[in-house]
Amino acid sequence: MENTEPIGFIDSGVGGLTVIKEAMKQLPNENMIYLGDTARCPYGARPAEQVIEYTWQMTRFLVKKGIKMLVIACNTATAVALEEISQQLDIPVVGVILPGTRGAVKASKNQRIGVIGTLGTIKSQSYEQAIRSRDLNAHVISLACPKFVPLVESNQYQSPIAKKVVAETLVPLQNKKIDTLILGCTHYPLLRPIIQNVMGRQVKLIDSGAETITEVSMLLDYFKLGNLYATKTGELTCYTTGSTKLFDEIANEWLQGPTIASKHIQLGDE
Amino acid sequence: MENTEPIGFIDSGVGGLTVIKEAMKQLPNENMIYLGDTARCPYGARPAEQVIEYTWQMTRFLVKKGIKMLVIACNTATAVALEEISQQLDIPVVGVILPGTRGAVKASKNQRIGVIGTLGTIKSQSYEQAIRSRDLNAHVISLACPKFVPLVESNQYQSPIAKKVVAETLVPLQNKKIDTLILGCTHYPLLRPIIQNVMGRQVKLIDSGAETITEVSMLLDYFKLGNLYATKTGELTCYTTGSTKLFDEIANEWLQGPTIASKHIQLGDE
Repeated sequence: MENTEPIGFIDSGVGGLTVIKEAMKQLPNENMIYLGDTARCPYGARPAEQVIEYTWQMTRFLVKKGIKMLVIACNTATAVALEEISQQLDIPVVGVILPGTRGAVKASKNQRIGVIGTLGTIKSQSYEQAIRSRDLNAHVISLACPKFVPLVESNQYQSPIAKKVVAETLVPLQNKKIDTLILGCTHYPLLRPIIQNVMGRQVKLIDSGAETITEVSMLLDYFKLGNLYATKTGELTCYTTGSTKLFDEIANEWLQGPTIASKHIQLGDE
Repeated sequence: MENTEPIGFIDSGVGGLTVIKEAMKQLPNENMIYLGDTARCPYGARPAEQVIEYTWQMTRFLVKKGIKMLVIACNTATAVALEEISQQLDIPVVGVILPGTRGAVKASKNQRIGVIGTLGTIKSQSYEQAIRSRDLNAHVISLACPKFVPLVESNQYQSPIAKKVVAETLVPLQNKKIDTLILGCTHYPLLRPIIQNVMGRQVKLIDSGAETITEVSMLLDYFKLGNLYATKTGELTCYTTGSTKLFDEIANEWLQGPTIASKHIQLGDE
């Protein structure tokens, strides 16, 4: 009943930590390994082939660590690489787009749903297709926000600049009568208070990462992979391809849990 | 991509209609068949062996109809029969107890969680074990509410009697400092306004049935069973072993959708 193997999480940078935060709450028993490809972040404007290659590099690194499940905690990578990776691995692989879709369909009352994400995610139309295929009557309004990820990765997500950039970027979503907005990038929940303020309290924000943990929790149960009846809290190990200092600053501020001391690794030299 | 086979739902009576209501919202494309064993309701005080036998009778009836997934939309039946039925069927089988557990762990901030259910569900300690196995630090306070199901089945769930019974029954949960209460019986959401009023607004009520539909939605995606890109809304067919008149009254009042005209069937004469 006790499966102590870790769950693996990958992201282009620190964004997937928003998924980790929810995992620490909902799955306190589980051991976790996180890998952020900070050195090559952002992924949003990169060609799909390159994102797929980078995602495979991260995946192979974590599979060698003996993970029992892989979470692609990055919308850009999920949009282009989930299908291929989940077909080729023999452990369950979870992306963030379908959980975000389900969360939005569940929350929306007027079936007018907004989606914000990176250029890559919005261009892929993944959310639009996922929502429309499930609900013929849903309206989806999408907007790429390429300036948001750099704000987070540079640890400026609480700054006055962030407020200005978010307000200016979200103008096209005003007066569109959406009642639900999907944060279609795992970096965006760090900007959540600002986004909520700009959109107004009547708009429900869907954190695709948080929804993803519900799916992870469900799959742990379904495939009987959970670390049940643990006698101590799970551990989190972090790796980054970039600056460990910047990563740890953001991680410790965001997670407010046991101190994170990430390890530096290099990808792409296999 | 279009799998029009129905999803099957079974319950001891009309309680599973609360799960259906959520399914109509979250999965508007899906065709559904519902079977309520109203003639033998409530299940709550029956011996486990008998509940297992009745649940198998309902299951066999729906399997013959060609369902692609089975939802045991009854906590009492889930507690004693889910494991056995899911092992023996070759379609995915979903119960209501783990989804309710996940919803509560996700929602609770002080890790003090209340559970109300039938005698059978509470006696099984299913919620208690599921929560504690996932979170060592959680406190679970359980209470059997055997008078609630008859209030709903007799269509008295909005009456002054219901208010009195609910208030008296929930006294043992007062001052227990719970911030989350699992409605561990699919009948209870019909009493939700009364329960919320008695418990106070600070207590978050978890509708195990609504959480279950998130799991159903996820499994439809994971196993690629969804009725995607449908061109019309799914249909709901209802069967009851009891009075179709009473069933239809409750169903139409509760679902507020296309008119339900249930069909009467008899179980147990196989």
